[in-house]
Amino acid sequence: MVHVTTRIARADADDIAQLGQYTAATIHEAQGRRGAIHSSIKPIDPETSFVGSAFTVVCAPRDNLMLQIAIHFAQPGDVLIVSAGEYSEAGMFGDVLGNACKAKGIAAMVTDAGVRDTRELRELGLPVFSGSVSIKGTVKETLGAINQPLVFGGELIHPGDVVKGDADGIVVVRREEVREAAELSARRDATEAGLIEKYWAGGTTIELCNLTEVLKAKGLTTDLDDEIEAVEAEAVSVVAADLDAVR
Amino acid sequence: MVHVTTRIARADADDIAQLGQYTAATIHEAQGRRGAIHSSIKPIDPETSFVGSAFTVVCAPRDNLMLQIAIHFAQPGDVLIVSAGEYSEAGMFGDVLGNACKAKGIAAMVTDAGVRDTRELRELGLPVFSGSVSIKGTVKETLGAINQPLVFGGELIHPGDVVKGDADGIVVVRREEVREAAELSARRDATEAGLIEKYWAGGTTIELCNLTEVLKAKGLTTDLDDEIEAVEAEAVSVVAADLDAVR
Amino acid sequence: MVHVTTRIARADADDIAQLGQYTAATIHEAQGRRGAIHSSIKPIDPETSFVGSAFTVVCAPRDNLMLQIAIHFAQPGDVLIVSAGEYSEAGMFGDVLGNACKAKGIAAMVTDAGVRDTRELRELGLPVFSGSVSIKGTVKETLGAINQPLVFGGELIHPGDVVKGDADGIVVVRREEVREAAELSARRDATEAGLIEKYWAGGTTIELCNLTEVLKAKGLTTDLDDEIEAVEAEAVSVVAADLDAVR
Amino acid sequence: MVHVTTRIARADADDIAQLGQYTAATIHEAQGRRGAIHSSIKPIDPETSFVGSAFTVVCAPRDNLMLQIAIHFAQPGDVLIVSAGEYSEAGMFGDVLGNACKAKGIAAMVTDAGVRDTRELRELGLPVFSGSVSIKGTVKETLGAINQPLVFGGELIHPGDVVKGDADGIVVVRREEVREAAELSARRDATEAGLIEKYWAGGTTIELCNLTEVLKAKGLTTDLDDEIEAVEAEAVSVVAADLDAVR
Amino acid sequence: MVHVTTRIARADADDIAQLGQYTAATIHEAQGRRGAIHSSIKPIDPETSFVGSAFTVVCAPRDNLMLQIAIHFAQPGDVLIVSAGEYSEAGMFGDVLGNACKAKGIAAMVTDAGVRDTRELRELGLPVFSGSVSIKGTVKETLGAINQPLVFGGELIHPGDVVKGDADGIVVVRREEVREAAELSARRDATEAGLIEKYWAGGTTIELCNLTEVLKAKGLTTDLDDEIEAVEAEAVSVVAADLDAVR
Amino acid sequence: MVHVTTRIARADADDIAQLGQYTAATIHEAQGRRGAIHSSIKPIDPETSFVGSAFTVVCAPRDNLMLQIAIHFAQPGDVLIVSAGEYSEAGMFGDVLGNACKAKGIAAMVTDAGVRDTRELRELGLPVFSGSVSIKGTVKETLGAINQPLVFGGELIHPGDVVKGDADGIVVVRREEVREAAELSARRDATEAGLIEKYWAGGTTIELCNLTEVLKAKGLTTDLDDEIEAVEAEAVSVVAADLDAVR
Repeated sequence: MVHVTTRIARADADDIAQLGQYTAATIHEAQGRRGAIHSSIKPIDPETSFVGSAFTVVCAPRDNLMLQIAIHFAQPGDVLIVSAGEYSEAGMFGDVLGNACKAKGIAAMVTDAGVRDTRELRELGLPVFSGSVSIKGTVKETLGAINQPLVFGGELIHPGDVVKGDADGIVVVRREEVREAAELSARRDATEAGLIEKYWAGGTTIELCNLTEVLKAKGLTTDLDDEIEAVEAEAVSVVAADLDAVR
Repeated sequence: MVHVTTRIARADADDIAQLGQYTAATIHEAQGRRGAIHSSIKPIDPETSFVGSAFTVVCAPRDNLMLQIAIHFAQPGDVLIVSAGEYSEAGMFGDVLGNACKAKGIAAMVTDAGVRDTRELRELGLPVFSGSVSIKGTVKETLGAINQPLVFGGELIHPGDVVKGDADGIVVVRREEVREAAELSARRDATEAGLIEKYWAGGTTIELCNLTEVLKAKGLTTDLDDEIEAVEAEAVSVVAADLDAVR
Repeated sequence: MVHVTTRIARADADDIAQLGQYTAATIHEAQGRRGAIHSSIKPIDPETSFVGSAFTVVCAPRDNLMLQIAIHFAQPGDVLIVSAGEYSEAGMFGDVLGNACKAKGIAAMVTDAGVRDTRELRELGLPVFSGSVSIKGTVKETLGAINQPLVFGGELIHPGDVVKGDADGIVVVRREEVREAAELSARRDATEAGLIEKYWAGGTTIELCNLTEVLKAKGLTTDLDDEIEAVEAEAVSVVAADLDAVR
Repeated sequence: MVHVTTRIARADADDIAQLGQYTAATIHEAQGRRGAIHSSIKPIDPETSFVGSAFTVVCAPRDNLMLQIAIHFAQPGDVLIVSAGEYSEAGMFGDVLGNACKAKGIAAMVTDAGVRDTRELRELGLPVFSGSVSIKGTVKETLGAINQPLVFGGELIHPGDVVKGDADGIVVVRREEVREAAELSARRDATEAGLIEKYWAGGTTIELCNLTEVLKAKGLTTDLDDEIEAVEAEAVSVVAADLDAVR
Repeated sequence: MVHVTTRIARADADDIAQLGQYTAATIHEAQGRRGAIHSSIKPIDPETSFVGSAFTVVCAPRDNLMLQIAIHFAQPGDVLIVSAGEYSEAGMFGDVLGNACKAKGIAAMVTDAGVRDTRELRELGLPVFSGSVSIKGTVKETLGAINQPLVFGGELIHPGDVVKGDADGIVVVRREEVREAAELSARRDATEAGLIEKYWAGGTTIELCNLTEVLKAKGLTTDLDDEIEAVEAEAVSVVAADLDAVR
Repeated sequence: MVHVTTRIARADADDIAQLGQYTAATIHEAQGRRGAIHSSIKPIDPETSFVGSAFTVVCAPRDNLMLQIAIHFAQPGDVLIVSAGEYSEAGMFGDVLGNACKAKGIAAMVTDAGVRDTRELRELGLPVFSGSVSIKGTVKETLGAINQPLVFGGELIHPGDVVKGDADGIVVVRREEVREAAELSARRDATEAGLIEKYWAGGTTIELCNLTEVLKAKGLTTDLDDEIEAVEAEAVSVVAADLDAVR
């Protein structure tokens, strides 16, 4: 016997929308380099992105029964997080279920297994992220968990956590930390914009990151040591907290 | 000594064209979930698709001698199926041979090894599917079989079998079963179109697939059991044969 | 203590530009099938290509300290070759450093590890080639070599060697051999253009490559041996050196 | 700044010893098919096994600084769980640290990265499980977490959870569930012993698992249907709970 | 509905035993380099080997229902060939079913998925070959084919074909070709024994394989050309058919 | 045309023997963490080890012609380094050639491709290291380089460089640096032996590596800071150069 949880707590809708303005990479950095899903899970269309509340599903490999049930109970704005054993040689989701999701207002579908009908899904405009694309069919046999915490792409996701995905990958933010993550992301974006401006104004990677002292301490020398000293003399002051902003 | 078979039996051209209207995923499902080539073999341009008769070639890894011979003997509308040991670090096919194929009216080139000149091939408009893209060159040394049955991407392909490929992958259909596969695909497409219409009209994944009974039998309960019973009461009747259509 | 070499010898700028006209695949073939980097290193935008002088950097996995230093010392037209242990689960380069590179006139950034901010980098127009795309952040801790010869993607690269990359992959040319490689590439391109013309004029892969004799010597027979003899009788003479041009 | 937790709660030593009598596979099954670490992490000596309290460590890839600190603070009977980014091309642990562990009474060392000195470690008799064996050295640069919950081999491990490893793999048991898992494992072992006895007495896989009815319900027929009915008639009664015991 | 075939034609028992005397590598070579199963399927104990009639089974990934049924119907001397989607993260076979097989006289168990209880299986003495070792459990849900031809490890196997496995890998021989394959293997073994004797008597790889002429034809020169001519002058005559025997 | 170099410079035999006393891991560390071959190349018997002069060979994938020629020209004590495109699905070396090597006094055979007859080779006592074990046969068709520098397992090897291999992996030492590498290895072994002694005498990983200061500088704090200070007070002095010795 399997008992399905359909009612989950979700973050505030405005906070979610706020967070969705930032890229997955920025959010990951801003919240302390946490929550990045494994890089093997990729969008079928790199132009798409999504943000929403995680609605977690565990399917058996090559079996999409629980995914069908999840679509039935998910709410508009939810993101289906479908763990299916990282089984790449089956397409558990295609344009029929894609239309079912789109009609319900589901925000995105993310799986560590395969999907198919990628052209039709791209035209439909539903963000779909998967571990593979495969035409091989699935069965509808095995019960599994819905809205239990699960390890997905190497990270722990609770139902109701907020997930953001784009061309670069996916990040998960704890439900209680969404507003804070959005604020930290905004600050990081501002720092990065400032740095980019300074690079175009002629600033260098060593001075803008205050690396001169660090490099000396670590014992770096160059065949241009005079030049380094000159750089150091005119080094622009950047607060230490900005250092991590550079990537 | 190697003896090459150049004359092979092909399916009826109209039947092949008929089959080509359906996606690889649909054909795979319609013929009983058979014939899907491994998902590692991908188009260099996801916008392209093809259908045609398999003209099978076995090359030694990093050696394209037999591919040249195959192009010589292939007929317009044929699809070259080139097994080369799944060797990814060589590009055995590029724009020169691509032009040779295009000039002869060959429908597509499929290999489990690598290709190159992908930009030129995309512009040429020849569908090319491969296991990798590599600039590394090949030699012309070793004889191999032409038009022998071979295991390719995990599936058995006979010369003259019909292959369909698109953005999602490749499926093989036995030469004698092409007309039947096209008819089954048409039926499946119609079922799917009907389902999609119903989803947009508000139908749910559980009712449209008649899953209520199945789930009860398997022992699924939810925190919303009242709602499930309500769903069940008004469940739209869908014939059992439709159940598999949903993916 | 680590000593950084910032001054390297570069090839003549005109020779580099000359070489850049040819594809990576053509250059690889033309210089005797040497210098191809492993096919796992791919452009984030297949429309981009680059040519330039290798400025080599060794980073620790998940650490981009030395990359920052390399950007500081690289010259306009240089290509950063960044070895970071083929570590795929970190994005060591994004839009901030991308702007720093672009502002300095760096020609391209190539790494065997991951990058991120791929949409922003595509818009920026900087050619970026990498082993993966990952949102996971890096640290700035560990010193490493700059402008030492290194094995990258399975090939030896010296600082100042010329690298060309495009949709198909990357090739390295020794600094002293750039002019010769460009000349050999030009010759190869001409041969290929001639072959393509002949294919469209009805020439076949067997006759254009003079394969009839080779195949006989190797013991190939067909069910069409009469046809082969006819082909042979009218075979167009192509110099033996051209044989390798066909791929 | 990184703050290290050195004091962790551990399960009762007798309960741990009790649990250690069962294989990892048995414990995994007995506690409801939970807690299995990814199969890529293997013992360097399949004759060894271990049980103990998880002492968790996060190292940067190719950096064993935190492992040294962990050995300093770990207690006799602890098992070091060392996450290092699944980086296979470095050996972060060898015979020197192996002797340090053995001298302190550490029960085992488990990592998702590489180790070396495997012959010496085998002779030392310390159970070592790793994702790879590599001679490549590491640095001592980067701080990381000690005794924080971490995702390791796809599973969540808390400090103080109990881990059991043997030739087949590794399983984690929540600290509060050790006694219960041991009891369930004992029961499962007894069931399996009973089944093995019955197989040797002539029982068959279908009758001992009461599969006849299940197969009928699923629609299985054979070319020997008479025989199945005969089997059914004399079917030995096995309680339903035993069904899962058979693997 | 699934219909199971339990009665299959088998090769003559003496012929099978005869074939079993030769290694998988020898048989593969002797029958014309055919029938080798992919190298990823390995014995859990390299000291074991087996020969027997293929009894083919298709299981869903992570589901061993059909394996249980297959054990019920298999005959003494049969080898279970269990395709389960090359799914590595589950152990579908352990010591309980191992005892069931051993008690029935089944010759070996081969799967492209995972197994567990490897120590117990080694002690039991049942040859078990698998794609992985995993402690993760399976379900008993999904029907599948028994004794249908299947593609396994990249090769086509018919029920009743004879399979030989040892430390190096597995080869399949068509049922009607067992006697011939055994005779060809015997001849090959004799040739190899003769070659080994000659190597120890001072023969060289070039003379014993009659390579001098071949190398000249291909255009090989050395810095020792005098020596080669000397070798050639006293070259021992080995019949051309022996050339392939050397590996 | 291919020209083979058979005469190569070798290191002094006593120096080679001296170096062979140390493990591959120790030599790799001692010479500055250089020269480690990729961890995917493993011994077929972990009990074996070897040391000798590299005799380099490039074979085409699935083709062992040049290996036969190399065995002809190699000298007693040489180690065959056979690059064959990292092609895993062929066994290019077995017991016949193994006997040819053993009869000539060749020290070991190392390849990035596959081998077979592993049981016979183990009994023969010839150290064989390979990227895979496969029964699939090879051809004898394609010429390739002998005794040219090559990139092998990600490292550059010159003919005559000295290679040492054991259960953990393989390291290459430049021919001119053999004596120095042996001396540095001896020193490292002594340091390690001293450390091991101290660990058994109760020394801790933090004090023996002088990590207290380093950790403070990096900002590490613990819930036991008193204890750390105590450790620091009685810290045994170890010279800084020893720090790297600990692994």
